Amino acid sequence: MTDTATPNVTIHPFDDAIHLDTLGNGRYRGRTTEAYRNMVGPYGGITAAVMLQALLQRPERLGDPVALTVNFAGPVRDGAFEIATREIRTSRSTQHWFAEMVQEPDSDVSTTATAVFGTRRETWRHTEASPPSLPPRETLIAARKSTSAPWSERYDRRTINDLDAGVARSWVADVPPRPLDFPSLASLCDAIRPWLFVRRPQPTPIGTVTLNVYFHAAADELAAIDAAPLKVVARTNVIRRGFFDQEAQVWSPDGALIATTQQVVWFKA
Amino acid sequence: MTDTATPNVTIHPFDDAIHLDTLGNGRYRGRTTEAYRNMVGPYGGITAAVMLQALLQRPERLGDPVALTVNFAGPVRDGAFEIATREIRTSRSTQHWFAEMVQEPDSDVSTTATAVFGTRRETWRHTEASPPSLPPRETLIAARKSTSAPWSERYDRRTINDLDAGVARSWVADVPPRPLDFPSLASLCDAIRPWLFVRRPQPTPIGTVTLNVYFHAAADELAAIDAAPLKVVARTNVIRRGFFDQEAQVWSPDGALIATTQQVVWFKA
Repeated sequence: MTDTATPNVTIHPFDDAIHLDTLGNGRYRGRTTEAYRNMVGPYGGITAAVMLQALLQRPERLGDPVALTVNFAGPVRDGAFEIATREIRTSRSTQHWFAEMVQEPDSDVSTTATAVFGTRRETWRHTEASPPSLPPRETLIAARKSTSAPWSERYDRRTINDLDAGVARSWVADVPPRPLDFPSLASLCDAIRPWLFVRRPQPTPIGTVTLNVYFHAAADELAAIDAAPLKVVARTNVIRRGFFDQEAQVWSPDGALIATTQQVVWFKA
Repeated sequence: MTDTATPNVTIHPFDDAIHLDTLGNGRYRGRTTEAYRNMVGPYGGITAAVMLQALLQRPERLGDPVALTVNFAGPVRDGAFEIATREIRTSRSTQHWFAEMVQEPDSDVSTTATAVFGTRRETWRHTEASPPSLPPRETLIAARKSTSAPWSERYDRRTINDLDAGVARSWVADVPPRPLDFPSLASLCDAIRPWLFVRRPQPTPIGTVTLNVYFHAAADELAAIDAAPLKVVARTNVIRRGFFDQEAQVWSPDGALIATTQQVVWFKA
């Protein structure tokens, strides 16, 4: 995608959306973009990504993200926002952070996040989980985009809903393709179609209230995946009394588990 | 257990451990107890429970806990601590909180937590997950307690490690029995033996860095379970580069999914 103001500079819409200006004292200024707009306000995944991006900008930051929790406390309005970051504590192997997003004029907090960073040294290793079985990506049809939710055009999602197993298996890729990093992986964790819509096709108002991401790969490992489409297997355990959960595994195409993610979603039905 | 100072009053060691004095301005004072001591400092589950308990004490609190994330930023020392709570935002159906634990003399933050509370109205419902298959509790032998970790005596854990499926299925109950509530459920989410120890029996230093709990039942539903032992099915997806994850489902004996939980654990091996 070409930036219309400076046509010889190419900037990916994701990088545009997570761009932050440094304000000092751990504060950053950004703004929502049309490319990741949802029906009302921005797509939750891009908000998670920009919260993480603020922490990644901190010069004190050590190591790679290991865990990220983003709480969607209230609506993010289209326009400018500020993110204040706070270093909670740093030890030899981990570093803990808190971040909150506010918007003028009322300075209400729309979003909070906590994150754990860690030093990813080599250790004994063992993988228990198995990658999902998925047909070749080319044989699947991409999910329809929604014109009222432009963010849906930012992902190529090819999903098989296994109603017997209660599992959705997908190929997911950024549109246009973009080298994988922690913010884009965090954003992708929110891109799976809610299972509620599979089980109950009526229009249902929903909103994610909290999103959790555990990163199982280091920065160099994500960089090696480059822009390859990822495999995602997602499941919802229970839908009841106003909330449902979703949990998912994100796998590299060659079978490395790179993230696990969970969220709780409010719904009205 | 009988309180030795007032022998006609019975207080459960869990209630003793999560007891907080109100200091005003959303601040609470507590102290660690011998009953939930781990090898160094308190058991992580009891720290999670007391963070949640502080939020439950706030008179502004609306509804039931839906999600809790506890970040273990540094060691909790045996002795007194303070928990400062902060209401982030309240909407019609959800309320978001932040809490942090500090200890004198240096006021370092040992623990942070975010929580989402929600109003649990009746809605359309659907359960996708299935309860674990477990033999009758009476037929299983309880896990050995560790004298160097007194908290292990506070749980009766009867576990089948299914090495083929990579899953640990357990009956878990408070010792002595205690009616279930949100703090005790949060604490129990940390009680499963790390899968690393199953796959790699050598002594390995570990420490949970973050614990996440999603509550799928309302207060009245937990109360109805009373002190019945719970079923827990736990799995670790991946152990590598200094960290491993654990995720678990907690089921009532009559087959209701009441919590899902995840954590990331640092290890040295």
